[in-house]
Amino acid sequence: MHMDVKAEVLEAAKRITGHIRETPVEFSPYLSELGDCKVYLKLESSQISGSFKLRGAMNKYLSLSNEDRSKYIVTASTGNHGAAVGYVLDKFGGKGAIYLPNNASKAKINALKEYNVDLKFHGDDSMESEIFARETAGKNGHVFISPYNDPKIIGGAGTIGVELMKQVESINSVLIPVGGGGLIAGVAGYLKSIDENIEIIGCQPENSCVMYESVKAGKIIEMESKPTISDGTAGGIETGSITFDLCRQYIDDFILPAENEIKEAIKLILEKHYLTVEGAAALQVAAFIKEKNRFKGKTVVLILSGKKIGLDTLRKVLEED
Amino acid sequence: MHMDVKAEVLEAAKRITGHIRETPVEFSPYLSELGDCKVYLKLESSQISGSFKLRGAMNKYLSLSNEDRSKYIVTASTGNHGAAVGYVLDKFGGKGAIYLPNNASKAKINALKEYNVDLKFHGDDSMESEIFARETAGKNGHVFISPYNDPKIIGGAGTIGVELMKQVESINSVLIPVGGGGLIAGVAGYLKSIDENIEIIGCQPENSCVMYESVKAGKIIEMESKPTISDGTAGGIETGSITFDLCRQYIDDFILPAENEIKEAIKLILEKHYLTVEGAAALQVAAFIKEKNRFKGKTVVLILSGKKIGLDTLRKVLEED
Repeated sequence: MHMDVKAEVLEAAKRITGHIRETPVEFSPYLSELGDCKVYLKLESSQISGSFKLRGAMNKYLSLSNEDRSKYIVTASTGNHGAAVGYVLDKFGGKGAIYLPNNASKAKINALKEYNVDLKFHGDDSMESEIFARETAGKNGHVFISPYNDPKIIGGAGTIGVELMKQVESINSVLIPVGGGGLIAGVAGYLKSIDENIEIIGCQPENSCVMYESVKAGKIIEMESKPTISDGTAGGIETGSITFDLCRQYIDDFILPAENEIKEAIKLILEKHYLTVEGAAALQVAAFIKEKNRFKGKTVVLILSGKKIGLDTLRKVLEED
Repeated sequence: MHMDVKAEVLEAAKRITGHIRETPVEFSPYLSELGDCKVYLKLESSQISGSFKLRGAMNKYLSLSNEDRSKYIVTASTGNHGAAVGYVLDKFGGKGAIYLPNNASKAKINALKEYNVDLKFHGDDSMESEIFARETAGKNGHVFISPYNDPKIIGGAGTIGVELMKQVESINSVLIPVGGGGLIAGVAGYLKSIDENIEIIGCQPENSCVMYESVKAGKIIEMESKPTISDGTAGGIETGSITFDLCRQYIDDFILPAENEIKEAIKLILEKHYLTVEGAAALQVAAFIKEKNRFKGKTVVLILSGKKIGLDTLRKVLEED
């Protein structure tokens, strides 16, 4: 399946303006000095619903026909994508369900209860609950919204690229988290269409780097993931996902931080920028620090993709000194 | 001295637009349910430089003559006001100094080193260093920028009110931190000029409530303050400050949270909104919870004035469970 990322992103930008926040960019004096370069943080952590996921969910919903919008909307997610879909349904008075795996954390379940959506439980991990949700939606004539495997989700996420081109001059490198690959496919596809020399670096935790291994293998692979504090990027990729070819095409390099490096980055962003970020957002900071020497003299953007870190997790991270 | 707050605020709004962030307002489902009312958080914690102080500092600087702008700019602050002035001077290529008391914390000193300003030390507390800074500036023909006792500082801070009138419908009550009184004077003066029925509630920590005691006494008093985690509102009020009469005129009521209530509020905002706030911002959340019954059925705005909480302080707050 061919996808014109630039066109999807520009359409999405028109569609979702006014429904999402244009998130600020903040210069980081500390990281800039550390790498002898210019480091900007894209604060997508301050997006409505707490993460970049709102961009895709909003774009997808607004591109549905009126008939489809009135149907029951089904998605699968334990975290940010679920919150984004919940927010969109609340805002437009839609009805729907979020499927969660049976072992979803209490904190995430409670966070989703804020929205007027049904919570349903199936399977032992995200992938199982996602497959079941999609099948059930199909059988019942419901509308399924994928967390990443959909041109409208990718196009929505890519609108971050449109904002970056206005906000930061002469970008050399952009560090982006990779889970299912929707965010990086959208942002990278758009940025490369404007300037093919912009370097796109995918960030995954060493403990769960399915896209990295898949790109290396030339096909989507299944592999065991170890636990990671970057839960937003953890887990497998759906077979046949359109994000895979886009990742192969657009990602110039990967950096794979270790767990302790991600935890240190959470602390650092809290200490230097007074911002709460989740593991998947601190990931880019950890990746930058891990390979800081390669960015000397460059203008670097780190996408801080979301803010939702549990209080217990944060407490543990702060205690480990 | 008479001051037309509304006129100052509207002039300030024109002057500083584009130089500051219009900060978002976020609905709080948790606090709304708790008080059976609608609670909105004004996220001034996401203002550039980390607090509302940028509004006043920017307005003051931009209202200086070209001649004064080229002079050496002097201020006194250990925290947010210093960072705001530092940011403004960096942005416009100005030169100046921030006076700090000898016992200023290392964390705050380090934060101010980010800016290209001179750091000077004098006296045993903020008041001593402020008086010395003003005198020294006067003797040397430098420009002194007060943290709160200046119509331009008050007018700049009041621009939060202009944004609130656009962002939230039918506001009944606004909870605002009170230190020197610049923020509440500006916001309350503007809001009351639009709708005199909007209730203005000043928040001070029980441990340091100089304005509360001064308003009660009918004159600015000197009193010993106990230590408080709301360091942004702590300390005395300069003799003859123009904020005093404005506070007497506009503040309908005070709420004075205890230290443990402020600490609980810091945790709550972190847990429910994933936001890092300093004590002076959590103060309004603590005040709302303390007297939640009086807000039933109302639309309430809590001004989260700043985000800069030290990592050690945050760690201690999280450990106290």
